[in-house]
Amino acid sequence: MKQSFFVFVVLTAAFFLQGNILGQESSMERGVAISEQTQECITCHNISNAGIVEDWRSSRHAQMTPEKAVVKPKLERRISSDSVPDSLKSVAVGCYECHSMNAAEHPDTFEHFGYVIHTVVSPNDCQTCHPEEVEQYSGSKKAHALDILQKNSVYHNLVVTTTRVKEFTDGQLTHSKASETTKNETCYACHGSRVSVKGTKIIETYLGDVEVPILTNWPNQGVGRVNPDGSRGACTACHPRHSFSIEIARQPYTCSQCHLHPDVPAWEVYKESKHGNIFFSKQHDWNLNNVPWTVGKDFNAPSCAVCHNSLLVTPDEELIVQRTHDFGARLWVRIFGLIYSHPQPKSGKTYEIRNQNGLPLPTTFTGELESEFLIDEEEQTRRQKEMQKVCQNCHGANWVRGHFVQLDTTNMEADQMVLAATQLLQQAWDEGLADPANPFDEAIEQKWIEQWLFFANSVRYASAMGGQDYATFKNGWWELTRNLQEMQDRIGLKAK
Amino acid sequence: MKQSFFVFVVLTAAFFLQGNILGQESSMERGVAISEQTQECITCHNISNAGIVEDWRSSRHAQMTPEKAVVKPKLERRISSDSVPDSLKSVAVGCYECHSMNAAEHPDTFEHFGYVIHTVVSPNDCQTCHPEEVEQYSGSKKAHALDILQKNSVYHNLVVTTTRVKEFTDGQLTHSKASETTKNETCYACHGSRVSVKGTKIIETYLGDVEVPILTNWPNQGVGRVNPDGSRGACTACHPRHSFSIEIARQPYTCSQCHLHPDVPAWEVYKESKHGNIFFSKQHDWNLNNVPWTVGKDFNAPSCAVCHNSLLVTPDEELIVQRTHDFGARLWVRIFGLIYSHPQPKSGKTYEIRNQNGLPLPTTFTGELESEFLIDEEEQTRRQKEMQKVCQNCHGANWVRGHFVQLDTTNMEADQMVLAATQLLQQAWDEGLADPANPFDEAIEQKWIEQWLFFANSVRYASAMGGQDYATFKNGWWELTRNLQEMQDRIGLKAK
Amino acid sequence: MKQSFFVFVVLTAAFFLQGNILGQESSMERGVAISEQTQECITCHNISNAGIVEDWRSSRHAQMTPEKAVVKPKLERRISSDSVPDSLKSVAVGCYECHSMNAAEHPDTFEHFGYVIHTVVSPNDCQTCHPEEVEQYSGSKKAHALDILQKNSVYHNLVVTTTRVKEFTDGQLTHSKASETTKNETCYACHGSRVSVKGTKIIETYLGDVEVPILTNWPNQGVGRVNPDGSRGACTACHPRHSFSIEIARQPYTCSQCHLHPDVPAWEVYKESKHGNIFFSKQHDWNLNNVPWTVGKDFNAPSCAVCHNSLLVTPDEELIVQRTHDFGARLWVRIFGLIYSHPQPKSGKTYEIRNQNGLPLPTTFTGELESEFLIDEEEQTRRQKEMQKVCQNCHGANWVRGHFVQLDTTNMEADQMVLAATQLLQQAWDEGLADPANPFDEAIEQKWIEQWLFFANSVRYASAMGGQDYATFKNGWWELTRNLQEMQDRIGLKAK
Repeated sequence: MKQSFFVFVVLTAAFFLQGNILGQESSMERGVAISEQTQECITCHNISNAGIVEDWRSSRHAQMTPEKAVVKPKLERRISSDSVPDSLKSVAVGCYECHSMNAAEHPDTFEHFGYVIHTVVSPNDCQTCHPEEVEQYSGSKKAHALDILQKNSVYHNLVVTTTRVKEFTDGQLTHSKASETTKNETCYACHGSRVSVKGTKIIETYLGDVEVPILTNWPNQGVGRVNPDGSRGACTACHPRHSFSIEIARQPYTCSQCHLHPDVPAWEVYKESKHGNIFFSKQHDWNLNNVPWTVGKDFNAPSCAVCHNSLLVTPDEELIVQRTHDFGARLWVRIFGLIYSHPQPKSGKTYEIRNQNGLPLPTTFTGELESEFLIDEEEQTRRQKEMQKVCQNCHGANWVRGHFVQLDTTNMEADQMVLAATQLLQQAWDEGLADPANPFDEAIEQKWIEQWLFFANSVRYASAMGGQDYATFKNGWWELTRNLQEMQDRIGLKAK
Repeated sequence: MKQSFFVFVVLTAAFFLQGNILGQESSMERGVAISEQTQECITCHNISNAGIVEDWRSSRHAQMTPEKAVVKPKLERRISSDSVPDSLKSVAVGCYECHSMNAAEHPDTFEHFGYVIHTVVSPNDCQTCHPEEVEQYSGSKKAHALDILQKNSVYHNLVVTTTRVKEFTDGQLTHSKASETTKNETCYACHGSRVSVKGTKIIETYLGDVEVPILTNWPNQGVGRVNPDGSRGACTACHPRHSFSIEIARQPYTCSQCHLHPDVPAWEVYKESKHGNIFFSKQHDWNLNNVPWTVGKDFNAPSCAVCHNSLLVTPDEELIVQRTHDFGARLWVRIFGLIYSHPQPKSGKTYEIRNQNGLPLPTTFTGELESEFLIDEEEQTRRQKEMQKVCQNCHGANWVRGHFVQLDTTNMEADQMVLAATQLLQQAWDEGLADPANPFDEAIEQKWIEQWLFFANSVRYASAMGGQDYATFKNGWWELTRNLQEMQDRIGLKAK
Repeated sequence: MKQSFFVFVVLTAAFFLQGNILGQESSMERGVAISEQTQECITCHNISNAGIVEDWRSSRHAQMTPEKAVVKPKLERRISSDSVPDSLKSVAVGCYECHSMNAAEHPDTFEHFGYVIHTVVSPNDCQTCHPEEVEQYSGSKKAHALDILQKNSVYHNLVVTTTRVKEFTDGQLTHSKASETTKNETCYACHGSRVSVKGTKIIETYLGDVEVPILTNWPNQGVGRVNPDGSRGACTACHPRHSFSIEIARQPYTCSQCHLHPDVPAWEVYKESKHGNIFFSKQHDWNLNNVPWTVGKDFNAPSCAVCHNSLLVTPDEELIVQRTHDFGARLWVRIFGLIYSHPQPKSGKTYEIRNQNGLPLPTTFTGELESEFLIDEEEQTRRQKEMQKVCQNCHGANWVRGHFVQLDTTNMEADQMVLAATQLLQQAWDEGLADPANPFDEAIEQKWIEQWLFFANSVRYASAMGGQDYATFKNGWWELTRNLQEMQDRIGLKAK
């Protein structure tokens, strides 16, 4: 007792005097062996990239060996493989362990001061220890997020129409090709870019000139990034380098990087919801790092991860829901990104859908579902029940039931408000006031897009997650109504 | 000393090792007796709704008996009744204590595994221990927030015009009736819904089928909710279930659920103000739980509650201002929600106001005040002085004076910018370019609404609470000016 | 050991029982002598303005004498003077020390209960101990922020056109003069007002009537405030009274008071960036108070101050970058506030620039640079390298290089999107559809302003700081494109 007490005093004093949790954690690293190679990485990169090294030092990767991680009780495990290669077992998961993994499969592999490493550590590398996560993710829409914009001709047209540079020539607007840079910084920033190797170059560093591969569309950390090794996804999109923290991934701030106003206002709706209120008010008391994650003990209101993907247990360690890295797996209805709400698609490769007009969309422009590609009612019910298991930890069955019924009504009404806009647009097309050849490039078409992509999405999210102003004045019913009026006036104006 | 020191070490260690404040607090519960009935509630609901039980365990209600609460020194008391019923005195305020209170008055009372309970605990129940708070609240605008939208014909028209589903039929926009769901998720989400009982139904739960009352317009937690027992308000709107925390209610995140951009941008203005800056930067050092709440010790900049309703004391325990649950009680001028700024109404039942044109509004459309229903100058001065007592804790008298003078000027100028918009609208009506029958349903009328409901409100809030961009580009003078220009162009365009 | 352990226990217990860091810090004050004069200030103001006194008690000024501050190792110093006046050396920096400094130079100096003090403590006073900071600041654009709006005729016109009250008279919009109040609460709230003395007045306080100077345009805390003593700036804009905290100044919340959506969306872009995600997720582990500030130890992602002005060291205490209070000193390109991006101006007095059309702007309306007033390529490169030193702590050289190349492309493309809008506006002017006399007061001109001041700025910031939605739908390429379409339609409509 005496000794442990001394340790306690020292640690606590360090906390108060330094406020330095990172330092505290890195002192724990002493107990874990670091491979010789990683040690050598650190020797140099400690000087040139101290932030990377320190961030890693604060990570679980630095403080735990795979052989210890793998024998934890099932509910406490943060590693889904039951075995790990011998070479990795007894050392920290350090620079060299990841950046040298599967070297032969990486076109960005290069020789670096005697080591053969690659820049872009990919899900294919991570799955050495985390195979379940990678497998779940690989089937999800997130993994195919880039293809969803590039291989879906409708969406690709929207990307290009929006991002190409416009010029004013001979009294009218023309346009050039959309640049890779702009696509990377806009749509592909979240959806991911295609990173490939185009030769090598010499770059100047603190340590002199170094030859490195030239990567196209780099940097990028989008969820559907296509990596040089052909794998899809960037685990660092949610577990940022180099702490790869579960705590950060569970923070709503992580999801909010992409799921935000005006097209996907999940974050803003959460912020104005009761759930958000409790999170922001009480997060200093929460533990976002524990595994398993205990309702009422570790947190007392949901963050995004609670409802959508985390493994949850009761204070009695009863399993509530399993972890999933397919972030749509608990969802039955899809409420954003498309013209109308619809049952979740069966496959993450949504660009393979064909509706009755031959377009890669789950509905027609007037809302008819293409059910063949969408989950059926039974699967919808199953997922609703899964989600309700989460809700019922803090809400009575009556409350939950009422909430789900309201969401159904709202989705239907939001769809009706989109249909009215579509019919107005059709009238504009019929009367020759706009040209349907490209449905995304004229002023009235832009209003139609905003009707579904901004305003209908907003009221659906507001219903799903309990945000009041996003249903009302902030891109909600006020805008749905105002925008229809504007569309009507515009048609009337020109039609006379 | 030795023993308390041991306790201290254990508690602190628990904090660091677990980060589990909730757990720590619930261990304090052991000292407080729990009624047999509540104990039985917990036995089942611990399984079916662990989050509810744990949240309650972390609450003061679980850790304190009314008989101990009632004998605290006046300034430290969180309970305003001087006596509590004998049956409640010596047990924690648990599930059964609240959900069985005043059973006969609750139409939603039902039999549940041998106990007679009701779903909706109402202010009428809470006032058993908190009578002052309920009395103050009951007279306020918040308590009548639903009636203000339903019994005020002008506002009811705005609600319905905005939220009804529009359809495109035979070449023009028509509309159906606004659904209860949509009204509940939009305006009534903050203002409150009318919850009543319509028979019973069987619902499926973890514990098998259970018969419960059918509640209309449920769930809802709006501030003016009309409860099945006829009482008005939902204490949980600000003190969320089931911790009923004063800490959460004092967080600006609570008020921000409803008082937010674009119609009531109190939250956004606070965020960009110096006050907000200090709150966000230093809140980790603040104590939002202490009663009384000490300026400079517990906090060093205001949150909403500091200025608008909390009991504040100096470090020498001198009273600065009394607590109030009438949230308009320190306000002299009303700067949102209506066409023009005006003195605060005398009564929370603002739907009883009649202006000289017979409308339930405190001014005419062109700004003439209906003074009979509004507080007089003497009362305005009294309230200004009350508020200034708060300001002067951190600001010199000269600073405070200057601030209040600026606010007067800004309110006047914002009103002038609304008047110009109203006169433009009148011209549109006079010229037959729009139809005054419904002043809320045409494009130019929507611009007029935005002029007062969004833009004028924004500059007034920005002035009142020190937000710079809400006075300027973000719904401020930029928009006030741009919108007038748009209205003028639109009239000119059609008038020629 | 025994005694220090006891102190530790007491302090820690105080923390847990009171959550009162402020109290804890103020107990440290006992070790520091307070001047007799300041002691007397506190005696009264402790009653009338307890918040001010407590905030000061929590400050470093209260807990440290200049003579101790001045002998710290260079990297740890928070004071840049090598010597301080004898009278200040051995007492805390209290009320009297600052409010009596340089009395003769302050027109707002007045007699107050036997002391000669002034209200507005200015940079000229602060430089007694902090000369380097004041000197750097004085040359910066911030110090001249008011002149930039008042002495630059183009910008002054924009201020006045936006903020003057509009009236509807005889069927058309007219306008009166913009009020000082409104200018102070809008543009000058950030840019600063001109504070001068116009006689004295008697004000009512807790302590009876007191004669004080009448200050014009007060209160104000803008960065370019012109103080009664003629000095420029308000140190309290970032180090708010009366803790003058480095911790608050380093928080992004401080910068966000002015650098925010829609005209300068630095804050909103940061919030949606990976950097922001890590800050919000992990700030509870950070130390924002340490000097020097250590990468990876004190923080693991940048706040505004990290990149733009703080002194940074590696964990081995190697200097990375020097502190600067010229907040543009690490910047090579200017991406906001003007029509086109351009190299940073050489002088903070940007109102002295004259372009080839004689306007005080760094480019013409069509984008030709006025290089004479702007830094050259060599200086641009030097600053880029300085900034890259910061980036490279957490990013590989390849990543950093790619990021900077993308920013160049984005700035160029955003400029092209502004040029197209300018050419559309020119066409409107040429065709007599708008009047170029005032380029800021007609609807199509307002659209042109939004193209550069809101939308082009947004995509540039999104590129510079890694925000995805500000490049896309939230004032990004979507708006750049939509706005051009609207401008074209408007011209076409009227032109026919």
